[in-house]
Amino acid sequence: MHNFTKRDFPVSNVRRFLEPGPIVLVSSAWKNEKNIMTMGWHMIMEFEPSLIGCYIWNENHSFNMVKKSKECVINIPTVEMATTVVKIGNCSGSDVDKFKKFKLTPLPGKKVQAHLIKECYANFECKLIDSSLISKYNLFVLQVIKAHVAISPKFPKTIHYRGDGLFMISGPTVKKYRKYFKPENL
Amino acid sequence: MHNFTKRDFPVSNVRRFLEPGPIVLVSSAWKNEKNIMTMGWHMIMEFEPSLIGCYIWNENHSFNMVKKSKECVINIPTVEMATTVVKIGNCSGSDVDKFKKFKLTPLPGKKVQAHLIKECYANFECKLIDSSLISKYNLFVLQVIKAHVAISPKFPKTIHYRGDGLFMISGPTVKKYRKYFKPENL
Repeated sequence: MHNFTKRDFPVSNVRRFLEPGPIVLVSSAWKNEKNIMTMGWHMIMEFEPSLIGCYIWNENHSFNMVKKSKECVINIPTVEMATTVVKIGNCSGSDVDKFKKFKLTPLPGKKVQAHLIKECYANFECKLIDSSLISKYNLFVLQVIKAHVAISPKFPKTIHYRGDGLFMISGPTVKKYRKYFKPENL
Repeated sequence: MHNFTKRDFPVSNVRRFLEPGPIVLVSSAWKNEKNIMTMGWHMIMEFEPSLIGCYIWNENHSFNMVKKSKECVINIPTVEMATTVVKIGNCSGSDVDKFKKFKLTPLPGKKVQAHLIKECYANFECKLIDSSLISKYNLFVLQVIKAHVAISPKFPKTIHYRGDGLFMISGPTVKKYRKYFKPENL
């Protein structure tokens, strides 16, 4: 797996990596336990503050860990990790320590107790800032408070889930449509 | 532009096209006016009912049209339409009729007053089922009540926005990770 060198990244610009819709790994920590889940349902909700809406199923082991700790890290895996990502999504943190089982390296967060997954391309430290939609929609409104992003490559090759075990793998990033934007919309 | 032949598609499975995170076009109709907007912030929220969460900025002309009509159509454009998609996002329905300006064909919906964009790969007719998050988050909770999807290709080449005028173009869809899923998770 990759060994990325990362730098601090502006939290207001995490959309660069999340808006294209990749599968992400959510790491959480609560009462000496840590866990990882695979997540596909998320969206950007605001630039500043940097808000992300996430659906976490209430039967997932991570559901209560994020709800109770009010924190998590959103990690962006690249295609090299795809097998691990799927396996993480097909076992439960109530049975196994996923960091150990999948030989992933937990790095301490700067602002949250949850760990960054070293092997991922980017790590976004998040605080749960609105719990009011959890009971009705399993919807967690998170604020990214610290972002770490690999220096290279500029754009990671990510995996995007279609359901039924199928993944779309991200293709090239192109600049050729940029000229059709109004400057104020860039 | 493409001339797709479409069939009815199960609404509970629209995640196949939305979860990978493409830019979509939202068409709406209200009081003899129709409009189209470009949207990047959306997420699947449930299979059954088929729920989608969408962020529509309150300064967009479409905001009030969707809010008042309580309906819209989510249309999935392919990369061939990318220039048009960007241009649609860089002008306002308060100034122009975007169907006319961009030579797009409005087809009547089966269940909503908003029109399907014929030139798009797929069209999802939606009802606004929860307005309670609009004032706080510009978040529209929509239910897909009818889906129309092109017969071919099986997976469209979609565009995924990174901000700053840059698009990621969807790459291949692969099956090779399917064997790592538990059958009940497929």
